[in-house]
Amino acid sequence: MINLDALATPTLLLDEKKARKHIAFMAGKACQQGIRFRPHFKTHQSVAIGEWFRQEGVNQITCSSLQMAEYFAHAGWSDILVAFPLNLREISRVNHLASTIHLELLVESTTAVSFLQEHLAGQADAWVKIDTGAGRTGIPAEETKTINEVCCAVLRSCNLHLRGLLTHAGHTYRARSQEQAVATYQASITLMNKARNNQLKEGLTGLEISVGDTPGCTLAEDLGIVDEIRPGNFIFFDATQAAIGSCTAGDIAVAVACPVVAVHPDQEKVVVYGGAVHLSSEHYPEGELKVFGLVTMLNPNGWGTPILGAYVSSLSQEHGILHIPRKVIRTIQPGDLLAILPAHSCITVSSLKKYLTLAGETILAMP
Amino acid sequence: MINLDALATPTLLLDEKKARKHIAFMAGKACQQGIRFRPHFKTHQSVAIGEWFRQEGVNQITCSSLQMAEYFAHAGWSDILVAFPLNLREISRVNHLASTIHLELLVESTTAVSFLQEHLAGQADAWVKIDTGAGRTGIPAEETKTINEVCCAVLRSCNLHLRGLLTHAGHTYRARSQEQAVATYQASITLMNKARNNQLKEGLTGLEISVGDTPGCTLAEDLGIVDEIRPGNFIFFDATQAAIGSCTAGDIAVAVACPVVAVHPDQEKVVVYGGAVHLSSEHYPEGELKVFGLVTMLNPNGWGTPILGAYVSSLSQEHGILHIPRKVIRTIQPGDLLAILPAHSCITVSSLKKYLTLAGETILAMP
Repeated sequence: MINLDALATPTLLLDEKKARKHIAFMAGKACQQGIRFRPHFKTHQSVAIGEWFRQEGVNQITCSSLQMAEYFAHAGWSDILVAFPLNLREISRVNHLASTIHLELLVESTTAVSFLQEHLAGQADAWVKIDTGAGRTGIPAEETKTINEVCCAVLRSCNLHLRGLLTHAGHTYRARSQEQAVATYQASITLMNKARNNQLKEGLTGLEISVGDTPGCTLAEDLGIVDEIRPGNFIFFDATQAAIGSCTAGDIAVAVACPVVAVHPDQEKVVVYGGAVHLSSEHYPEGELKVFGLVTMLNPNGWGTPILGAYVSSLSQEHGILHIPRKVIRTIQPGDLLAILPAHSCITVSSLKKYLTLAGETILAMP
Repeated sequence: MINLDALATPTLLLDEKKARKHIAFMAGKACQQGIRFRPHFKTHQSVAIGEWFRQEGVNQITCSSLQMAEYFAHAGWSDILVAFPLNLREISRVNHLASTIHLELLVESTTAVSFLQEHLAGQADAWVKIDTGAGRTGIPAEETKTINEVCCAVLRSCNLHLRGLLTHAGHTYRARSQEQAVATYQASITLMNKARNNQLKEGLTGLEISVGDTPGCTLAEDLGIVDEIRPGNFIFFDATQAAIGSCTAGDIAVAVACPVVAVHPDQEKVVVYGGAVHLSSEHYPEGELKVFGLVTMLNPNGWGTPILGAYVSSLSQEHGILHIPRKVIRTIQPGDLLAILPAHSCITVSSLKKYLTLAGETILAMP
């Protein structure tokens, strides 16, 4: 039970039961299909929650920064992939990690590989980052020659062990239906297998494939010919994932309890204490609208289903502006609490850094 | 001088000279026009930087949360307006502050006023929050009856002292020219004076007017018939303010030094370590584009003018994706540093919580 009376400022609530169910689902799915499960811990960023994964047999993880890898290494995780292009300026951190755990790095240029060959003190595994259409980072999947150059540079390096090709099909987040998300995921897998075959023709054998976006890994019944999946967001999901169809709103495992500070029924507008510094400014399109989160009622046992037609319409530094339909708004008063299902749970966690479970326990995330 | 070699992760740089110049400009402008200057400290959020204001004669400030007010009260600020609608759930914080400093609060409903009358232990000043078109919060300026009800409730309350009408013309941020911003500011002042006159007709005398957005306060030569201005962002400005015309890009006093982690010349794309958790996801429209920040080169004495045609095109949790024109991109390598002029400096400060001045000094912000 949550002591609602004690909540005075924006508070990140966590439904442990849902989160544990999502972990079990994804671990089970990977296991059944004989695929290595290396979940991304950038979503929950918490040593305590990491243990829930350990209880599902997970012992290999993904982090999005060296700082995060240090945090989890310190808590006993000894096999960590840092899924971010190598930052040359953090080589001392890389060296420290490589001397204490099994470390896996991403490279996408011969510059990075040469640098590691010269400056990496210990040993590390290296994955070549491939762009299958997300357009964020990585070598485009069809650039066989560049991929080969980087792979060969890794092979020649005496302190790097080449693991294979890695991608993040982040463009599944642009999907607005399950079918679209699955099609994007499958197209990404096809491109990765083509890229691997092209390298095979160049004489490179044994390259693994690592993928990992939540919409694809959740929705594709068959995960395809891959060796490893690295989804992260699925542990909590969020309003964006519900809009894609990766989950229902009822599956979302985190919500931010926000005090109501102003109610304007004529404008169908409620103002809450809970702004960009708490929820982040992430949002997703819903027709003409920008949706920064969904809105639900709160009770001591958790939150309900989203209020029909209600959404977070804008955020400033500390203010959240909610559109609440006329019928419902009459029941809301200043001093009430509302729960916001965030547009992007990962960044919300990163802002609030602390959870309150529905059992009333506090769980800390990375400081 | 900055020791660039020591910068390994996204680092918030501060040009103290520019910031002090901006403080002096705004303090001088208010003084010349006989208007009280109560700067908003939510932008810099730093006790050390607060002293720069003190040196310009400032002793009354604005904060955006009670927590921030506590932080500055602890550092000796004894006259603080919390420019956020009263959060009933934080009454114990309000009471503690009211017992130690001169505290000013915002109300916009009789519910809030009744609550204060019952639960406020000491004394506080109250401003009635008016919406002049920003649409964020406050009573619409033309709703004379509601404004009067709230004003009269404050007057009847024995522990509140009615100060007047307060607005934040946040819709000046939607302007894309100096003329538009000034026109929006002036329209807001006109509405506030009309609202005050309407209350005068109802018998309420002596109501003050408080306003405070950076575009308006910076660009309007004549600040108009107001008693107080509360701008905040002007101390640093940012890329959004440059797009409005409140400042030039050269006036921006903060930049985030970001390590380059990948360069893709064919795509005119550079990836930096510096994402939504560092810069926030705030952005502004530039034609069809969403701009999350501008890009400049860095040297030990500071940063240069923005690279023509370059901008931050998207952000994920840790990644910043920069569009950099072909000509310039050839000079950029992984391991280099670039400086990002953020879209919204306030939220960037709130994310990074620490400055490095061009003199190489570290300045802390609120933890």
